[in-house]
Amino acid sequence: MALIVQKFGGTSVGNVERIQHVATQVAKSVSEGNQVVVAVSAMSGETNRLTALAQEMQSRPSKREMDVLLTTGEQVTIALLSMALQERGCPAISYTGWQVPITTDNVHSKARIEKIDGEKILAQVAQGKVVVVAGFQGVTTDGDITTLGRGGSDTTAVALAAALNADECQIYTDVDGVYTTDPRVVPEAKRLERVTYDEMLELASLGAKVLQIRSVEFASKYNVPLRVLSSMKEGGGTLITTEDNFKDNDMEKPLISGIAFSRDEAKLMILGVPDKPGVAYQILGPISDANIEIDMIIQNQGVDGNTDFTFTVSRNDMEPAFEILEGIATQLGAREVLSDDTIVKISMVGVGMKSHSGIASTMFKTLAENDINIQMIGTTEIKISVVIDEPSLELAVQSLHEAFELDK
Amino acid sequence: MALIVQKFGGTSVGNVERIQHVATQVAKSVSEGNQVVVAVSAMSGETNRLTALAQEMQSRPSKREMDVLLTTGEQVTIALLSMALQERGCPAISYTGWQVPITTDNVHSKARIEKIDGEKILAQVAQGKVVVVAGFQGVTTDGDITTLGRGGSDTTAVALAAALNADECQIYTDVDGVYTTDPRVVPEAKRLERVTYDEMLELASLGAKVLQIRSVEFASKYNVPLRVLSSMKEGGGTLITTEDNFKDNDMEKPLISGIAFSRDEAKLMILGVPDKPGVAYQILGPISDANIEIDMIIQNQGVDGNTDFTFTVSRNDMEPAFEILEGIATQLGAREVLSDDTIVKISMVGVGMKSHSGIASTMFKTLAENDINIQMIGTTEIKISVVIDEPSLELAVQSLHEAFELDK
Repeated sequence: MALIVQKFGGTSVGNVERIQHVATQVAKSVSEGNQVVVAVSAMSGETNRLTALAQEMQSRPSKREMDVLLTTGEQVTIALLSMALQERGCPAISYTGWQVPITTDNVHSKARIEKIDGEKILAQVAQGKVVVVAGFQGVTTDGDITTLGRGGSDTTAVALAAALNADECQIYTDVDGVYTTDPRVVPEAKRLERVTYDEMLELASLGAKVLQIRSVEFASKYNVPLRVLSSMKEGGGTLITTEDNFKDNDMEKPLISGIAFSRDEAKLMILGVPDKPGVAYQILGPISDANIEIDMIIQNQGVDGNTDFTFTVSRNDMEPAFEILEGIATQLGAREVLSDDTIVKISMVGVGMKSHSGIASTMFKTLAENDINIQMIGTTEIKISVVIDEPSLELAVQSLHEAFELDK
Repeated sequence: MALIVQKFGGTSVGNVERIQHVATQVAKSVSEGNQVVVAVSAMSGETNRLTALAQEMQSRPSKREMDVLLTTGEQVTIALLSMALQERGCPAISYTGWQVPITTDNVHSKARIEKIDGEKILAQVAQGKVVVVAGFQGVTTDGDITTLGRGGSDTTAVALAAALNADECQIYTDVDGVYTTDPRVVPEAKRLERVTYDEMLELASLGAKVLQIRSVEFASKYNVPLRVLSSMKEGGGTLITTEDNFKDNDMEKPLISGIAFSRDEAKLMILGVPDKPGVAYQILGPISDANIEIDMIIQNQGVDGNTDFTFTVSRNDMEPAFEILEGIATQLGAREVLSDDTIVKISMVGVGMKSHSGIASTMFKTLAENDINIQMIGTTEIKISVVIDEPSLELAVQSLHEAFELDK
């Protein structure tokens, strides 16, 4: 008998029919012999409705009171889902965050879980009940209600799975798993049976927005097997787990798991900077101070004692970064500042890279064969990213997907 | 500096504008030098909306889960009202029932308050904050969420006032106080400055539905001065307090405080019953067993060894009571069973009756002068009730109101 934590998000419980559908699904898991703990979000739309009410009350709504207000959303869902389960002959009981309790720090609106006491839940599970827990919420040691921030229900589910030592944490979403790339760009994209936590983190941060990064980190830290499934469509989804679990069938493990890409990229260049120690900090320090996140960085040393810096930021940050750079350029006596927001980033992700060479060269060769110019290159242990012109995005992803036989 | 508990019901917090209006009113009380604790209900309509959702989930919704569901209603209100107060520069903090905590027994949907711990509230009040408490809800010692039943926010307010040893408990409603009678029947009806708990209980149970009976009983038990006020209209409302508080100006205290009446009355008669010991029980026992509440009872002894029984019930209960009576009549060999649902009950209420005679005779004289026939009479220490024909209701109430100079 396996103990499973299942998480259903706002869309999955968005109306009466959806909640009934979830109840049927949970009841099925139980009838298959599993012990089930469910974490749910507020019904979709509810958070926006409550936020709108708050904004009519207070120009900058109190974060403490906002947490009191928003946590009613999941409280409604846990009660309704418990009722729907009982109606299906499946004993069920609801718990709010404070009832569990899920203890957090006191940072309202983005609290962090400090401790989950699994005792009450496990006692109910042992009695044959499904325990329906409110996601996204917790309580401080002083008894104040907190929220984990938007989308925090994933984190609740993973933290519950860790605390209860569950066999698996299943995240039900509107997609049926993690794909080799975006099927809207490559119709042949295939669902991955499994990926490692590290791969998932690279894929998620690069735009495959299936899971919250934080919950994947959490799952990785506590070694909780995580499965992404569709709440609408049957299927095994994608299992996210440690690399160890791949050892058995390493031969079958593909070199590359997936291709992520991001259109929200802009490039800034500061050219002809006198090449002295500390110049990188003088350029990038003020950018960071303005809370602009820098992604890739390249420095080209010139022959004339000057150097060129190129780095990428989100498109929204390009203008403010450009203004800061112009000030710096004057200060440092740099030649020119340029910006370009017609670039994209493509990343190939795979733990197989660790032990296999030649992936980068295959990637570059494939792009060259398609006349796609690489503007920047960045690598990590399990990822190679390139920056290219936006119009080449589709062709690049499609040809790489084919070259690495991800459709096989 | 007075400590006041103010209660606002669902209509008073029914939308954004109403909540803002309540916030302005509470802030005014604070600016007048009072310490204020507020108890609020769910926004009107919210309970019905949630109940409808529950009914779609489960044919007979679980009472435990129903309490989890419904208590979100007040939780939304406390957060919004706290925000609105803060926006007015009035420091405020919200507490749910479990946060106070308001400890109840574990009878879901109609729990009784066992204990209120006032410590947290008083600490916040001492810091100059308005504390906004969710009405209608509590928590068991096991940490389960409970509700006090519909309209239970009045009880929360009175219980809070008792626990905090508040100077006054103010119940804001859609009427501006307790009247000498229904102003729709007697336009000259006057608002009472004060009534005693006992009078209020008689007036409330007889149809002047301003306050929950239970909260008046509670206030009486703990000697909490209770004031009924309008949340829309300025004015001192009606103070409900002990008889002791009237002693000082007993001379001014009217004999009669008010005239209550009820149209929901039906009369049943069983005639020609052999007059033997135990016959009253034989007749009324089966009626009570059928959960039919009997109000007034009269027994007339006949000359022929037979007796007639007359009693009143709610109009809804007349048919079932009639059927039961017919069975009994056959059994006992009674002559006839009659019913009449065109009757009403009028009750004159006043603690002054205790020390003054002649009130009943003035009442009967007034009715006689207006050709109104009295069918039944019942009295308590502070009340005289008569049953008359429904068509005479308005004339009777108007003429009694005038005869006892209640409009003066």
